[in-house]
Parts: sequence; C-alpha cells; structure tokens
Amino acid sequence: MTTTEKIASFIAETDFDTTSAKENEVVKRVFLDCIGTTLAGYTHEMGKIITDFVKESGSSPRATVIGAGFKTSPADAALANGTMAHALDYDDYNLVLCGHPSVSLVPAILALGEERGISGKKALEAYIKGYEVEFKLGAALNLRHYELGWHATCTLGTMGAVAAAAVILELDVETTRIALGIAASEAGGLRQNFGTMTKPLHAGLSAKNGVTAALLAAKGFTADKNIFEAEYGFCNLFCGKEKYNIEALTDNLGNPYAVLEPGISIKPYPSCGGTHTALDGILDLVKTNNIKPDDVQQIKVGCSDLLPRVLIHSNPKSGLEGKFSMEYCMAIALLDKKAGLEQFTDEKAADPITVKTVKKVKIETRPLNDNKTDVFVEVTIKLNNGTELSTQVDTAKGNPDAPLSTEELTAKFKDCAILVLPENNADRIIAVMDDLENIQDIRELTQLLIP
Amino acid sequence: MTTTEKIASFIAETDFDTTSAKENEVVKRVFLDCIGTTLAGYTHEMGKIITDFVKESGSSPRATVIGAGFKTSPADAALANGTMAHALDYDDYNLVLCGHPSVSLVPAILALGEERGISGKKALEAYIKGYEVEFKLGAALNLRHYELGWHATCTLGTMGAVAAAAVILELDVETTRIALGIAASEAGGLRQNFGTMTKPLHAGLSAKNGVTAALLAAKGFTADKNIFEAEYGFCNLFCGKEKYNIEALTDNLGNPYAVLEPGISIKPYPSCGGTHTALDGILDLVKTNNIKPDDVQQIKVGCSDLLPRVLIHSNPKSGLEGKFSMEYCMAIALLDKKAGLEQFTDEKAADPITVKTVKKVKIETRPLNDNKTDVFVEVTIKLNNGTELSTQVDTAKGNPDAPLSTEELTAKFKDCAILVLPENNADRIIAVMDDLENIQDIRELTQLLIP
Repeated sequence: MTTTEKIASFIAETDFDTTSAKENEVVKRVFLDCIGTTLAGYTHEMGKIITDFVKESGSSPRATVIGAGFKTSPADAALANGTMAHALDYDDYNLVLCGHPSVSLVPAILALGEERGISGKKALEAYIKGYEVEFKLGAALNLRHYELGWHATCTLGTMGAVAAAAVILELDVETTRIALGIAASEAGGLRQNFGTMTKPLHAGLSAKNGVTAALLAAKGFTADKNIFEAEYGFCNLFCGKEKYNIEALTDNLGNPYAVLEPGISIKPYPSCGGTHTALDGILDLVKTNNIKPDDVQQIKVGCSDLLPRVLIHSNPKSGLEGKFSMEYCMAIALLDKKAGLEQFTDEKAADPITVKTVKKVKIETRPLNDNKTDVFVEVTIKLNNGTELSTQVDTAKGNPDAPLSTEELTAKFKDCAILVLPENNADRIIAVMDDLENIQDIRELTQLLIP
Repeated sequence: MTTTEKIASFIAETDFDTTSAKENEVVKRVFLDCIGTTLAGYTHEMGKIITDFVKESGSSPRATVIGAGFKTSPADAALANGTMAHALDYDDYNLVLCGHPSVSLVPAILALGEERGISGKKALEAYIKGYEVEFKLGAALNLRHYELGWHATCTLGTMGAVAAAAVILELDVETTRIALGIAASEAGGLRQNFGTMTKPLHAGLSAKNGVTAALLAAKGFTADKNIFEAEYGFCNLFCGKEKYNIEALTDNLGNPYAVLEPGISIKPYPSCGGTHTALDGILDLVKTNNIKPDDVQQIKVGCSDLLPRVLIHSNPKSGLEGKFSMEYCMAIALLDKKAGLEQFTDEKAADPITVKTVKKVKIETRPLNDNKTDVFVEVTIKLNNGTELSTQVDTAKGNPDAPLSTEELTAKFKDCAILVLPENNADRIIAVMDDLENIQDIRELTQLLIP
C-alpha cells in the first residue's frame, strides 16, 4: 500500500468504536473549549467581518454560524466558525503539530455534521481520525515545515479537516484518497500574516478546504491518489524534497491515538502558547508574594531562542500584537495579576502604564537544543529594594501533563460563551457536550449555538 | 517604496485610459476566447460537478454561472466559471507565466463586475492590470517556481485575480496591499494533480481566492502589507529564499503592458500548449501530402527534454490524459487530420485504431538550452515505402507572433459556444465583445451567458 492509501484506509476503514473509549474524554474537552473560543471570537472585530462576508454570500441555511444567529452552507459556516475559533488565539494547540487542531476540525465537523444530522459518536470519530492525520503530518514534516514559513494550522489543518469530513460523508478508501488530493491543492497559508486577521482566517480556510474537498470527491471529482508521497505532492512541496520523514506519517497510526498521546494543550490564557510557561511563572510569583507593580525594577525571562522568533512584537501596538509579545504578557500579568480576555485589548495596549511596564521586561535566550523540546522558562522579578524572586516552569498549565481542572475548563468556557449567549444556553451546551457519545443528532448541540 | 507597495500603487493609482488603447484589442480577443472555453467546459463532466456543487451552496443570485442557467455569489461564480474555463485545456496561456491567465482573470472580473455593474472599460483595465501583476510574478519566479511543482495558474493566478478584483472594487493603495496579503495566504495548487479534474479546479480556486481577498480587504480585514518580499512572504515560500529575481517584479511595470509584450497565446487545439508546435507540423504534413494512416510506419517528434516532463501520458487512457500526451496528439492528427474537441474524448482514446497509432510515435529529445526558450520541434513521418517527410516548426500557431485570424478565433468561439447556447446568443456575444470599451454595463454581456 502507498502512504496515501494507508492514510485513506485508516480514515475510511478503521473500525473505531467510541463507546466508552478513553479518547472521548479528551475530545469532549477540546470540542467544548473550541466552541467557547468561537463564541468569544464572534465578539472581535474580525468575527463581525467574517460573518458579514458569509452572510452576504446568502447561501442556503444548513449549517449554523456560531453566535451570529443565522445559517449558511456547510463550506461558508466552516470558514466563518474556523476564523472566529482562532480569532483570539485562545484555542488549543500541540507543539509537534506547531499548530491549533480544533479550529480546523470542530468547524468542519459541525458544518457537515449539522447538515447530515450525524450522531455524537460520529463527531467523536471524525475528530479523533482528523487529529491523527494532522498530528502525523506534523511529526513527519516539522519543525522544518513551520520554519520555512508555512502556518501548519492552515496547511496541515486542511488535511486534518478533510479527513474528518471524509469520515462524516463515509467516503470509501478510493474516494478518500481523491479528497486528500483535492485538499492538498487548496492548502496554503503564510506565517508572514501572523499578528493580523489573516492568521485566524487560515483556520477558517482550512476547515472550509476540508469540507469542500470531501464534498467534491463525493460527487465524483478526481485528483491524484498518492498526494502525500508523489514527486510533486504535499510533502515535497510543503517541506522540500527528502527533508521529511515519510515513515512517521503512517507509523503506529492510532496506536495510541494522538488525542491520547501526546494529547492536546488547552489554553488558560488568550495569547500565543509560547507565552504560557512564563505566564504561569510570573502569575505564581506576583500572587504568592503579593508584588506591587511599582516595587518592580525588572522582569527577566530566560527561554530558548525559538520563542523570540515566534513572539515578534516587543513593543505591541494592539491587543492582537500583545498576544505575540512576551514583554506584553509579563507586563499585564504584573499589573493585573491575571491574563484573561480583558488584558488583551487595544485600550490596554495603549495605556501608558502598560507601555512603561513592557519596558521593564528583558528576554535572555539560550540556543534551542537538538531535540527541540526545550520549553522550560525561568522568570525572575527584581525589586527596587534589591530582592530577586525567581521560579522555573517546565510544563505550561493546560498541557496534557498539567491539565486544566474540569472547573477551570468550564469556567473558561462560560467566560467566553456568555459574551454572546444567555448563561442558560452555556450551561446546556456543557451538559450536551458532557454526554456527546450518547447524542443521536448533533443538531441537539448546534441549535444551542444561536443566541 | 517596498515592492508590494509599488505593485499596489500600480494597481490602485496608475491612470489607465482604455479609450482606443492598443491593449484593448488583445484583451477583447482573449476575453471572448475564455468565455468560449468556459461554455465548452460546462459540457464536460467536471463542469456538471462544479456547477452542481455551487448550486447546492444556494448563494444569493448576483453573478452568472456561465452556461448553467443560474446565478450565485461572486465568489462561487468565480469558482465554477474558472474551473469550467480550464476544463478542456483549450484556454489561453503564456510561457513565461507557465500558466493560463484568462481562466483566473475573466471569471473574477465577470463575477464582481456583474454584481457592481461595471463598464466595459473597467473590465478591460482590470484584465490589463491583473495580467501585468501575474506576468511579472512569472518573470520573477519562473522557471523555478513551476519546476518545484507549483501550478502557476493557481498560485500566480490568485495574485492576478486579486489585482483585477481590487481594480473593480476601486481599493486604495493600502487596502490593495492588504488584499494581496490575504490572497497570498489563500494561494496553493500542486502540479501533481495534472491530468485530473483538480487541475481545472486550480483555475476556479484562483479566481475565487482573488474575489474573496479583495472583498475581505474592502470590509476592513488586515494582513501583512509587504507580502511579496517579506521574510515569510510569497516569493520566499513559493520559490525558495533568494532563488528569484525580486527586481523583475516591478521593473517596467506597464512599459509596455504585458498584454502587448509578450502578449498571450490563444490555443487552436484543446490540448496542452506543449503539443501545439508538433500539431502544427504534423497537420501541415498530412494535409499537404494527403497522407493515409495505413501508409505510415513511424512518426518522430524531436523536441526539448522539458516537454516529456509536462506531457506525462505516453499511453493515455482518457481524452483528458490525451491532452497531456504528445503520442496521442500525433496519432489523432494523423487519423482525423484535425485536433478539435471531438478528438479528445474517452471513446477516441479507447478506440483500438487510436491505441495502435499511438504506438507509432517516437519522441527524441535534446537537452533544454540555457535560456529555456527552446520551443521548436521537428516532425518526421516515415512511410512504409521508405519515404520520409519532415518539417520544423518554431512558433506555435496562436502565439502572438502567429495569431489566429479573426475568422479562426470567431469560428473557435462559435464551435464552443453552440454546445450550450443558441447560435444567436453566440453571435450577440461576439458583437458585444467587439464593442466592449463602449459597453456601459457589463451585464449587457453576462445576460447573454445564460442559455
């Protein structure tokens, strides 16, 4: 079997019984979290633009645009919901993938799933298989793929989304191979657009690409059937010839499923994942020691030199840039003793006190080690009186090894959801998601996503 | 000014008066030709699939799906019309671009133009500027971009389409820069999908990408403003760092306009442009000498070694594969003394006489010379009686240096159009196009594209 055939067989033919599977618990958490970030994303300016754009398309009402109060075609709903899900950079991520899985998968699953009235079990299976394909691509192509400048959330996310869509449409192996081939020709997305609205658009595009490719394949469209490994195929074009590990793409597919090992990180803070270990550290220091901002002379962050290449905004001019700024994150954590949605606004970024505090932050880097898993940070706060307080954080809160508690997850979801929905809806969504494997029709969930 | 700023200024601020411009005559020819290939493309299986797909979206009726008898959103119309325009590989091309310009530009211009009711002059300006951007990208990035495996019709076509769309929406310089940034993140398209329906889909995607990016930018979306030259920008990602000539992107913009120099080739045959010089040669030989197929022992084609890398189907199994087969093209030219739409069908490809004749064709290659403009071919027919008839062709018919006559162009258009439209409509389209610079509302044209 060719590589692509193996992947397509995994998608189309693996017998996955979600009845009481351990995988369900992980997926239900990230699914709920993604719906929350989508609802919060709707309140951002770009949420208004993207929902306005798809509303103008005026497509026939079959899939809910989350939070916006109308339905549209599955492809357009996937575009809008994916963009909103990633708008605040508050959604889940995985470091091997170098990307954000749920913002591609959940919108694709909800958009097609609502139209087809799939069961909760089918939604779980679609997520688990979609993430498996996306994660294995990350293992095969990264870090090189990401360092070239591709936004994996869009490129690899497109392939994950089409896998999930193929599960929902129940495509056979040959049709799934074609769907993967079509999707590869839709994929793109440049990291140069980080810090602009086009970064979240990448997530919407990936979800829409996956839905579109699966629907076209189902209708009898054709494409190359060995798109991953072929000469001018996905891996060569998006990574460079022989610059990737093709075996990693199919090694141990589903053994264990990647949703379990290594799992997916859920963000406690609405900023780039690269800021999270340092945020954990500084929040711990300022809260434990009840540090007053005026008493602080300097904040030092020691980290690998990969981080400044991602966190490119040392002097952020907006809340959005602040999400990609270690300096900004440290400043607001010191000032507000928290890092929630209200800390990443344009007003907060422009506040002279914030600007002054940002200047107190100093980054000290060490070379990234060979296995590229060097994620620990050291945070040191130097007070005016000469005292130094220091801490080291190895694992960011929200990682599978240090998960959010159910209470923390639920609280985050409600914080996001009630920006748009009545609190009663938010509670009902939590209850439905908790019972997802027993839901007969996913529309029990999607009907709750309209204010 | 940065490179992207120069391009955006060219698009947004160049005062281009189409009144009696020489450029008009070129554009009116390719525009008419593209409408013809779109109408013919509608009759292909993939035309039915893509129109069915956008019909299901059910978007509000604002832009005509050519030949299909309904309207949809501008983005969806661009997707369907672009795919149909390229379905038969009968549409125009340029060798520096390594692609097909009109199938990205015309669908984008018609889709947005119809909704906005633009004038014929505005349509001409949008085409001329869109082609300029696309052609200059080809000059800056090719041949390397194409040889890496990117389908320039999709990647560069996306950037041409967004330039044309920006003209129609009258975006200012800063908004045009953003539109270019968004479009770059939509661009993709793998040559691995050549010989499948996904190759024509690339054209549809490029047109749709351009329309989408311009509309989002107009609504206030944001993106990087230096997307061509930036570190993780379009040129680095789609060509490789420092592997392109960035100056060529802005050198002599519009001096002369690329629609005049080097111009655009219009196809007399519905097959890959790489087969055309050889088709000219063999058709001349068989017609001039009235050669009977049974008398032929062998057909030899001498050409550069680039051609077999494009014409990959030595034993084509379908009419679509036959379009990318030198052997097939020579066989049907010998058998039928023509190479029209009816020569590239699945039935013709499966006919035992065709299969037998394909085996008589032998390709002899020479190394591609340094300047990569080595396009002449030698065709030799060896008869059973020992006679050899030979000819050399330097310039394919349809190239700007050997253009189709007005009669030939019109005849090709009518051949295509009457597959779908009443002959009376076809004649009226020719008349409207002939007078395009004086048309007040492009809907005078689009209303004729519905059967």
